[in-house]
Amino acid sequence: MEQTFNQRLDIAQEAARLLAAVRADRPLIQTITNFVSMDIAANVLLATGAAPAMVHAPEESPEFVRRAAALVVNTGTLSAPAAQAMEVATTAARTHGVPWVLDPVGAGATKFRDETIAKLLRHRPSVIRGNASEIMALARLAGLTQEPGGPRGVDSAHETAEAEVSAQKLARHCLCIVAATGAVDVVTDGRVLLRLANGSPLMTRVTALGCALTAYVGAFIGVGADPLRATASALAIYAIAGDMAAEIAKGPGSFRVAFIDALAAIDARDIETRLRLG
Amino acid sequence: MEQTFNQRLDIAQEAARLLAAVRADRPLIQTITNFVSMDIAANVLLATGAAPAMVHAPEESPEFVRRAAALVVNTGTLSAPAAQAMEVATTAARTHGVPWVLDPVGAGATKFRDETIAKLLRHRPSVIRGNASEIMALARLAGLTQEPGGPRGVDSAHETAEAEVSAQKLARHCLCIVAATGAVDVVTDGRVLLRLANGSPLMTRVTALGCALTAYVGAFIGVGADPLRATASALAIYAIAGDMAAEIAKGPGSFRVAFIDALAAIDARDIETRLRLG
Amino acid sequence: MEQTFNQRLDIAQEAARLLAAVRADRPLIQTITNFVSMDIAANVLLATGAAPAMVHAPEESPEFVRRAAALVVNTGTLSAPAAQAMEVATTAARTHGVPWVLDPVGAGATKFRDETIAKLLRHRPSVIRGNASEIMALARLAGLTQEPGGPRGVDSAHETAEAEVSAQKLARHCLCIVAATGAVDVVTDGRVLLRLANGSPLMTRVTALGCALTAYVGAFIGVGADPLRATASALAIYAIAGDMAAEIAKGPGSFRVAFIDALAAIDARDIETRLRLG
Repeated sequence: MEQTFNQRLDIAQEAARLLAAVRADRPLIQTITNFVSMDIAANVLLATGAAPAMVHAPEESPEFVRRAAALVVNTGTLSAPAAQAMEVATTAARTHGVPWVLDPVGAGATKFRDETIAKLLRHRPSVIRGNASEIMALARLAGLTQEPGGPRGVDSAHETAEAEVSAQKLARHCLCIVAATGAVDVVTDGRVLLRLANGSPLMTRVTALGCALTAYVGAFIGVGADPLRATASALAIYAIAGDMAAEIAKGPGSFRVAFIDALAAIDARDIETRLRLG
Repeated sequence: MEQTFNQRLDIAQEAARLLAAVRADRPLIQTITNFVSMDIAANVLLATGAAPAMVHAPEESPEFVRRAAALVVNTGTLSAPAAQAMEVATTAARTHGVPWVLDPVGAGATKFRDETIAKLLRHRPSVIRGNASEIMALARLAGLTQEPGGPRGVDSAHETAEAEVSAQKLARHCLCIVAATGAVDVVTDGRVLLRLANGSPLMTRVTALGCALTAYVGAFIGVGADPLRATASALAIYAIAGDMAAEIAKGPGSFRVAFIDALAAIDARDIETRLRLG
Repeated sequence: MEQTFNQRLDIAQEAARLLAAVRADRPLIQTITNFVSMDIAANVLLATGAAPAMVHAPEESPEFVRRAAALVVNTGTLSAPAAQAMEVATTAARTHGVPWVLDPVGAGATKFRDETIAKLLRHRPSVIRGNASEIMALARLAGLTQEPGGPRGVDSAHETAEAEVSAQKLARHCLCIVAATGAVDVVTDGRVLLRLANGSPLMTRVTALGCALTAYVGAFIGVGADPLRATASALAIYAIAGDMAAEIAKGPGSFRVAFIDALAAIDARDIETRLRLG
């Protein structure tokens, strides 16, 4: 598979195929995400045809996750009860064989984030999606690199090119897919490394579009696809929808609206004509 | 009243009259709702002229609810502290004679939801508004029916036609108005049953529009109207605004924007010309 | 400074200068705000070029605030854990010399709010931004006035003209800047009192635009400006962006979108030609 999957047209066709599967299957995506992103993450999932369910209480997570197609966990606006909810939900996901995606928001920013994320990593996510600084922080946290630096607040202080080594080491260490997204998106299983180059700078001017992307990856994982292909497909389509929205937006407010419209409207031809590798 | 209220023009005129009352009175609606819906529910209330107040702490709910025109309680993104907040607030509402509306999000999905909702029912809501699966789950929970089935995540797995018997039994059992909303909205006091047929499929592609509808019902209950007429009026206007927005939307993103605009702009003539019974 | 700063052109030029500084410096603004406002507050900050970070857990606030340019604290959707988080974060802000801005949502509405806000005042905010009723409630709470009245829910029941004496007394008492915003915005350091008259009634029809304004003030405080000039500048630009958005909006839904676009697009010429003093 990996030999051919790094070709532009292969990726475009696979992305179109998986998008059709998401729209047909309407996977149920249990999402434990931060308060800033709940609205946009749910709307991104609904726009693409998936069914979001924001269910986080430890009292019901284990029961609910059994029927979910995938679980998404995001460490933004972290609190002690939220950390406990994530612990319980990811334990249950692993027990029931439900794939899950980790968005380590703020990794490297505080000790509390790092400790929470380190615990979550033990529950074996299928995919980790973060910005360059977060992926580099995770690799340091796992003892895989010793590069200095950290995030600026919760935003990246690095380009994704700087995170490629960290992403590959982390993917091999955790036996999962790692994606570092930014102007160029990098996605790797530890051996293959793809670079995707679509997307608009306006995407950094709307809050939580990175968090919503992680939920979007969950939808593609949720239709049973190979995690590398699912992650690359989700990243590619999301960024292309960003390009489409940027062409008609007048600023970050109208961009957000046009972006949701584009996610609902995007089709195979848009993907095949617009996809750019980095 | 009930003999004539199921005529199309009667409902349209009553809806227009109550909409004018909401815009004139600006009722204060205390809203304890899930994190996904807070933004859209508040914006729906503001667009229609009501005054939302998202106040949920047990330390202040009982004091605050005394001055509210109505209380809205929604069980989405449930947690143990939220369940306790709802318990305290609905107790206070009942003590002070403040009408309250229940949105039983996720009824039937987990044991924790069902137990929380069963407790809330004891505090006698004036109106229950849910999707078909939730209303059917509540009727089962109350021992009124034995129909199998449940929700798919937090979305309905049923048409509202399937929920009519449950809605009527539940209304008689709880002595309240029950509304099951979907492609056709069903509303009943246990004797009269109305079917309202406006609304766009795009309403299911924007998160929390059902939750925001429950808050919208709260505004109509809050101007002192008969609960059946208030609920039917709110459901009718909301769905007609959905039709108006769908005519200009390009997708779920622009639909959400146009819908809020339509709620602010809709007038008696829009209601009278567009209302459709099911 | 104060002698000349109340001239229209002086304020406009200072506002344009500080806006350029925010866009160049991208200050990191730690924001502890209510759940209703998180999305819009973060988007307002991003649209203007600042970097929001919604970090509230007591476990990490003190560590995080050291690198923030300013801290914003808002008492909407208050809870006991949130009150504790605010206590810890403002203590740390004061220790590390990080300026902070208080939005006392619901001051005067319940005993719980008043007690929480009274504690926060001891940690010496640089700026307090509220509606007229909230500023009047704070002055009463501090024993500075005995005027009756209070908010209507969380909305103002008063015009800002009624709050001018309270604002000045409060500013002198707390040694900070106090802003009471409404149709006319009043801002004072206890001696100088400015009245700014831009802004659209549509701003009251979109939820949490007041809360997001407080976050916006944080961005201007965060570039090291004199607090009176920073606050007046932020209020002026925000209200002018409201005027610009109102010219193209069709209702509160499209207003919100156009407002975010306007915050990103507004320039020195817009400010200088449009600024109106009250």
